[in-house]
Amino acid sequence: MEFSSKLLEKAVYEVSQLPGIGKRTALRLVLHLLKQPESQTDHLVSALASLRKDIKLCTTCYSISDTGICHICADTSRLDSLVCVVEDIRDVMAIEATGQYRGVYHVLGGKISPMDGIGPQDLHIASLVERVKSGAIEELIFALSASMEGDTTNFYIYKQLEDMPIKTSTIARGIGVNDELEYADEITLGRSILNRVPFENALKKP
Amino acid sequence: MEFSSKLLEKAVYEVSQLPGIGKRTALRLVLHLLKQPESQTDHLVSALASLRKDIKLCTTCYSISDTGICHICADTSRLDSLVCVVEDIRDVMAIEATGQYRGVYHVLGGKISPMDGIGPQDLHIASLVERVKSGAIEELIFALSASMEGDTTNFYIYKQLEDMPIKTSTIARGIGVNDELEYADEITLGRSILNRVPFENALKKP
Repeated sequence: MEFSSKLLEKAVYEVSQLPGIGKRTALRLVLHLLKQPESQTDHLVSALASLRKDIKLCTTCYSISDTGICHICADTSRLDSLVCVVEDIRDVMAIEATGQYRGVYHVLGGKISPMDGIGPQDLHIASLVERVKSGAIEELIFALSASMEGDTTNFYIYKQLEDMPIKTSTIARGIGVNDELEYADEITLGRSILNRVPFENALKKP
Repeated sequence: MEFSSKLLEKAVYEVSQLPGIGKRTALRLVLHLLKQPESQTDHLVSALASLRKDIKLCTTCYSISDTGICHICADTSRLDSLVCVVEDIRDVMAIEATGQYRGVYHVLGGKISPMDGIGPQDLHIASLVERVKSGAIEELIFALSASMEGDTTNFYIYKQLEDMPIKTSTIARGIGVNDELEYADEITLGRSILNRVPFENALKKP
């Protein structure tokens, strides 16, 4: 792509560094900004700059928070003996949206992935082990994705905690509510039979 | 979507104002930036800010340019009596990429679209009429999209120039090279028969 302007080329290049955005889309976005009032670009630029500069992680669960402790960890009505281990804040938001969970979280910030150069030391695993050692936690729920990296991470953490008197569980894998059996993959369907639940449980309101 | 951080919420909101980017994608992009080194966000922010602040339009053709006159208008080897009228700079880039065109351009900055509140006065039409009146132009090629808005814009400009001794043309509409006839829409196929060209022309190398 040949650009008539270095400024335009630089902006398109930087926008195209974002995941899933190619050069063409980046050009479309940048030209859109140029057509809008200057204030829109100003707002975007200042929101991104202050996000990157001022963002804080909760000192307990490593979720994103504007204050030292996030509103979930600070909420005394929540069970802080039950900790759900997730990859990032999107998972926290998804679980919170269900309204079903009354425990707290621990955000790892990713999964162990040697291919991407991410080891246990790059994640908030040591702090999770510390949290467990402090003695207030009774159960950990692993809610990482069911990929090789997710399973590796689960297992790594599990091994670290082996000697501690703590319950661990993973979220149930199975056929989604309203999904058709015939379209489910074999592994999911297989697991859903292996890990079947008593019928009375299924009668409970979600 | 409930956010644990106002900074995050604001950044996601601003990114989701871009066309074709919803809240979920915006959140994914913003979290990606947070995981990258701070310099990436700095580069993105400064590229967007300086683009919006310092960008100039060519004073002749209204294409984007860092200098007063764009490199195409400044190129003396190009035919400045032949002007291709396009919607935005992406069209200039697409036509330049063909390597077939040796004339210059006039970038309107959009199409007449009453539905979006865009009238002739919002586009660089008056300056095009001035350019034609100055007498150096022999032919205008309309290369706007073949939509109702594109046709309206073409016709509006055509009417403005009616009394002037100038040739006007539009780019050929027809079946794309390598396209199958059976998948072409009726209007395109119809036009390609109405506007058929002498076989000798089709033998010419593109």
